[in-house]
Amino acid sequence: MFESAEIGHKIDKAVYKSEEPALREALLDAQFEMKERGEFPVVILINGVDGAGKGETVNLLNEWMDPRLISTHAFGVPSDEESERPRMWRYWRALPPKGHIGILFGSWYTEPIVRRVSGEIKASQLDQQIEDIVHFEKMLAHEGVIVLKFWFHLSKNKQEKRLKQLEKDPKTRWRVSDQDWENFKHYDRFREISEHVLLETSTGEAPWIVVEGEDSYYRSLTVGKQILTDIRARLDRDKPSVTPPDVAPLLPPIDNLQILDTLKLDQELSKGDYEEQLEALQGRLNLLTRHPDFCKHSVIAVFEGNDAAGKGGSIRRITAAVDARHYSIIPVAAPTEEERAQPYLWRFWRHVPRKGRITIFDRSWYGRVLVERVEGFCSEADWMRAYSEINDFEEQLSENGVIMVKFWLAISSEEQLKRFKEREQVGFKRFKITDEDWRNRDKWGQYVHAVSDMVDRTSTAVSPWTLVEANNKYFARIKIMKTLCDAIEARLGKDREKEKDKKK
Amino acid sequence: MFESAEIGHKIDKAVYKSEEPALREALLDAQFEMKERGEFPVVILINGVDGAGKGETVNLLNEWMDPRLISTHAFGVPSDEESERPRMWRYWRALPPKGHIGILFGSWYTEPIVRRVSGEIKASQLDQQIEDIVHFEKMLAHEGVIVLKFWFHLSKNKQEKRLKQLEKDPKTRWRVSDQDWENFKHYDRFREISEHVLLETSTGEAPWIVVEGEDSYYRSLTVGKQILTDIRARLDRDKPSVTPPDVAPLLPPIDNLQILDTLKLDQELSKGDYEEQLEALQGRLNLLTRHPDFCKHSVIAVFEGNDAAGKGGSIRRITAAVDARHYSIIPVAAPTEEERAQPYLWRFWRHVPRKGRITIFDRSWYGRVLVERVEGFCSEADWMRAYSEINDFEEQLSENGVIMVKFWLAISSEEQLKRFKEREQVGFKRFKITDEDWRNRDKWGQYVHAVSDMVDRTSTAVSPWTLVEANNKYFARIKIMKTLCDAIEARLGKDREKEKDKKK
Repeated sequence: MFESAEIGHKIDKAVYKSEEPALREALLDAQFEMKERGEFPVVILINGVDGAGKGETVNLLNEWMDPRLISTHAFGVPSDEESERPRMWRYWRALPPKGHIGILFGSWYTEPIVRRVSGEIKASQLDQQIEDIVHFEKMLAHEGVIVLKFWFHLSKNKQEKRLKQLEKDPKTRWRVSDQDWENFKHYDRFREISEHVLLETSTGEAPWIVVEGEDSYYRSLTVGKQILTDIRARLDRDKPSVTPPDVAPLLPPIDNLQILDTLKLDQELSKGDYEEQLEALQGRLNLLTRHPDFCKHSVIAVFEGNDAAGKGGSIRRITAAVDARHYSIIPVAAPTEEERAQPYLWRFWRHVPRKGRITIFDRSWYGRVLVERVEGFCSEADWMRAYSEINDFEEQLSENGVIMVKFWLAISSEEQLKRFKEREQVGFKRFKITDEDWRNRDKWGQYVHAVSDMVDRTSTAVSPWTLVEANNKYFARIKIMKTLCDAIEARLGKDREKEKDKKK
Repeated sequence: MFESAEIGHKIDKAVYKSEEPALREALLDAQFEMKERGEFPVVILINGVDGAGKGETVNLLNEWMDPRLISTHAFGVPSDEESERPRMWRYWRALPPKGHIGILFGSWYTEPIVRRVSGEIKASQLDQQIEDIVHFEKMLAHEGVIVLKFWFHLSKNKQEKRLKQLEKDPKTRWRVSDQDWENFKHYDRFREISEHVLLETSTGEAPWIVVEGEDSYYRSLTVGKQILTDIRARLDRDKPSVTPPDVAPLLPPIDNLQILDTLKLDQELSKGDYEEQLEALQGRLNLLTRHPDFCKHSVIAVFEGNDAAGKGGSIRRITAAVDARHYSIIPVAAPTEEERAQPYLWRFWRHVPRKGRITIFDRSWYGRVLVERVEGFCSEADWMRAYSEINDFEEQLSENGVIMVKFWLAISSEEQLKRFKEREQVGFKRFKITDEDWRNRDKWGQYVHAVSDMVDRTSTAVSPWTLVEANNKYFARIKIMKTLCDAIEARLGKDREKEKDKKK
């Protein structure tokens, strides 16, 4: 991977001086057009060996281009708000909105490589993280983000020479830290591991660009031209969004039997039994959330279901049992302007809870494969890829200690009709049935198909779906409470087992 | 202040049971209407003595109302991201958007009271913080926020009884911590200081509501009815926004001589001198930002000025001297939807930098008293109150260690015309002169008046304006760089003096 970056690339000063002004001009124009059109963001990753000109390049890009349209992020030790969330959260929050450029100095590559070099993680763990990264970048690319990954390279001899050079000059001495020399000792291992990572993560959507770092003219022109080329290419396409790949359409099962059809929706529970069980379950949930180990976790509960299936009522039975300081409910409505300028999942990322909290989503990212699929709000390719994007997302949550529960509240078409009519009788405006609710009913069959696909493709060991038979509200609420308590208990129990194993 | 909250208020269970359903219904309706109209938010502060039912009330409100339209925040130890910013920042970020209710459990009152009780701060410091709070709440009220401040009170005997009672019951034992008993020892001092704070902060816009905490029926109905009354009153007004108070219009000076007229705009600097001085100043700035003490501070630089006065060019001369990881530029454009749902200053609060960073605002909160005033985008009352709101804001920044510099770049009308015409010759779209630029020129006189008022009313010791004669770009840039370097140096120098004083 680094062969061509050790052959002494060089550009004459005269050439540089003659090419630079036009390049800057063209970059500024491209930036301006990007901003005006606001169709896509650019993410530039800056990685590589110390002394190879990473910092200089970041500064140069900010000088060349309009720095008002660039946000530059460096990643040091995670803040406590960051370290209580999934590893990628700090990068999610640093993504630039459409029309902007984000430079990430150090990136999601830094930590895995450094930790592998130091032996903190095993080869298999590194490979797991590599896979996560590949999935993540693929998702970004599909969302229209241009991902440009630069790796600044120096051969071992040249790095040593360069660090010494920097140290000699009082003006640049600060650039060389003890850590840099410490890192240099591990040059060979760092090179070997980096090469592995680069090879595995250089994909069609987001290839690595390795830049020999010694000659600043060569380095700067290479980076500048690459950025210009990629932005320009996107701007000059007829249709700027990514052309969706062909997808294989999903047929409903040919016998037309789907998972929702197998549910016994009418399971009974008397009011008396309900009240008794609810009280016990609420007590249990309350105790669980005050368990000393709970603060190492958080809970994300996703509620989806037919209109009028009783999501709100079920959610209130949960929150009634928990201290209001420890939960928040996210009702998912149309995305805001700031949310529309980001990848689809961004508006959910921002609500990922800190440890010890419960976040309840009243509708969720599953809108992508439900309403957006059925109504055609996104392309088939978009919702098809959403299944694996969502699985990746939930896996990361789970790895971070999040206890995931997901409920589909199912009622029969007749029951829904009954509830709609009841609501029409009630005076409260907040319960009014809208035209949209009636329209959704007309698409009942399509939703049944979408739900079946969703459950099949996103019910995983770490984040299973629970289908809730909800014609009887009492039955539904008890099933939900019980599932939630069991899930928390199981996870806390696993913690204890791990503890025991460690002690052995 | 607490007299009426020690007289044993009580409500019969029967009365409570009969009134509760209608109250809940009415609260839900009010909430729904608030959300539909999206005109104002409600902030509910929950403070008071331990054991007086604060936690129970917060949970009850979430049960009674639609918890999806409520966000509840509790404030423990500040996170590191919070502790690097002004004291109020964590509350700023917790404010609910229009249409929503935010419950702040513990609030901006908690810390000042607790710290005064423990003797960490002096009476004079407490009074300073009280004044800040009064200003802040006044601003919220003017921005249309309903601020409801509940203080839950118990007499000393009753608090003791209550804590013992809670401890006896295994189900509520967790509610009583050692800290609660520790606090109880200081009951008298806590009461005395709280009373002082409540008296000083009970204003027409945001009065305190003291609630006797012993009887849960009384407590709950009191809080519920108060919330309902206040929301309902706002909703039922013809025009929901706050009626602007009468303001005394500002006349320009009767001899028509204004501060901008006194500037010698044509001060010269040759290209050679410029380049020499710029290099020296950039070196100086770079060293200052790498000074070990710099990481205790941050810099906020505000750029305002006539169109085409050279703001962008000046900003780039600063950023060229600083590591791109340490600055960010905020170009101020129209507020986003999420920003419009918040008080005016919110969209600037969110960009307040962490320590060790430089944030440059390309236009700023001064838009309120410049373009919004001149164009009539806000009422006279709104921009008149903005002066003191801005001074409060900048004072808090300065107290937090922020080094504030503010530049007004002034060019003559003739120079502007020349630059506009030059730009029309240039092919680059990004420099195009818009109709709006031409329209602004027609209001030159009004802007001169607005700038004079702005400088007079917001140039303070901790956050002075620098008027920059900018007909000559070289002169302007050097003056800006020098002012910035001097400001940082002065502040770092003060730090060292303080250190010395401490050692003595």
